Amino acid sequence: MRTFEDFTVETVLPLAPYDVTREAIVAFAAEFDPQPFHVDDEAAAATMLGGLAASGWHSCAMMMRMMFDGFLRDSTSQGSPGVDFVRWLKPVRPDDRLTGTATVLSARRSASRPALGIAKLRAEVANQRGETVMDSEYTLLLLTRDGIGQPSSGVVADATGGAV
Amino acid sequence: MRTFEDFTVETVLPLAPYDVTREAIVAFAAEFDPQPFHVDDEAAAATMLGGLAASGWHSCAMMMRMMFDGFLRDSTSQGSPGVDFVRWLKPVRPDDRLTGTATVLSARRSASRPALGIAKLRAEVANQRGETVMDSEYTLLLLTRDGIGQPSSGVVADATGGAV
Repeated sequence: MRTFEDFTVETVLPLAPYDVTREAIVAFAAEFDPQPFHVDDEAAAATMLGGLAASGWHSCAMMMRMMFDGFLRDSTSQGSPGVDFVRWLKPVRPDDRLTGTATVLSARRSASRPALGIAKLRAEVANQRGETVMDSEYTLLLLTRDGIGQPSSGVVADATGGAV
Repeated sequence: MRTFEDFTVETVLPLAPYDVTREAIVAFAAEFDPQPFHVDDEAAAATMLGGLAASGWHSCAMMMRMMFDGFLRDSTSQGSPGVDFVRWLKPVRPDDRLTGTATVLSARRSASRPALGIAKLRAEVANQRGETVMDSEYTLLLLTRDGIGQPSSGVVADATGGAV
C-alpha cells in the first residue's frame, strides 16, 4: 500500500500506457464534447486540429486511468481538490499509445489533520512519437501510514481551495 | 452562429442544466477513475467524501457538455489549448442537477492569425442546493466572423501554451 510517505519530493511515478482508439474518441465526444473535430473525420480535417482528435477532457480522463493503473490503485489516495493547470499541447489521435510520468513537486502534512498528506504532482503525457501531448499539475490527498483506518470525514481546511 | 465577436468581456453565458445519475457516475469511474469513493457506496461512506461522488474528471466532462449545449453548439469554437485551473469544491452526487454560467474574462484577436480570437472564460457549476461544486478558468479559441470558411490549420503561436 503506497501512502503519503512514499510521495517524497522528486519521486517520479510511472503512468500506465494507454491505447487510444477511434471508437473511444468518438464515444466520449458524443457524450460530453460533440464538437465537429472530436466526432467527424471530414469536419475535423478542415479545422486547426487537422483531423480527428480526442476531447481534451477525454485526454484528462485517460491520464487519470493511467495514473490509477500506474500508482494510485494500491494507495491511500483520498482524491484531489483541484488542478493547477492542464495544457493540451498536441492533438491526441486514434491509435496513439500514451505513456507518461507524474513527478512529486511538493509534499506536506495537513496542518488541520496530520494523518493526511497533501502532495502536488506534475503529470506529463506523451505519444508514441515522443511528443508531449499534455502537461498538468494537480493536488493529491493521501492518508499517512498513521492515518490508515482512522475515521476520515470532513473538510480539510488547508487543502488548496477544495472540500476533499 | 456565435463567433468571437460575441464573446465580449463580462458577457455571461448559460450552461445547460445536467442531471447526474448514479449509473453515470459509476460507469465513468469504472472506465477512467475507479477509486473506491467513485464506484462503491460503502467504501465511499468511509472516506472524506462521505459517500459516492463523481470523479472530478467526470464533473469536468459534464461541464463540457453543459457548455456545448449552453453556448458552443452553434459557435465557431476551435477548441481549447488548456485550462488555468479547476477546483472541485464540493462532491457531485447521484441525482444532483447541475447548472452554471461561463463569464468572459478577456478576449483578444490572435496576433499571428487575426481571423482567430482567444477568449478566457470562467466557468462555475452549482448543484440544486445552490452550492458551487466546481470553479474553473480556461481558454477558448473561436473564429471571427471574417474567419468563417477560411482554411484553418496550423499552430497558433500565441495561444496560451497550446498547439490548437
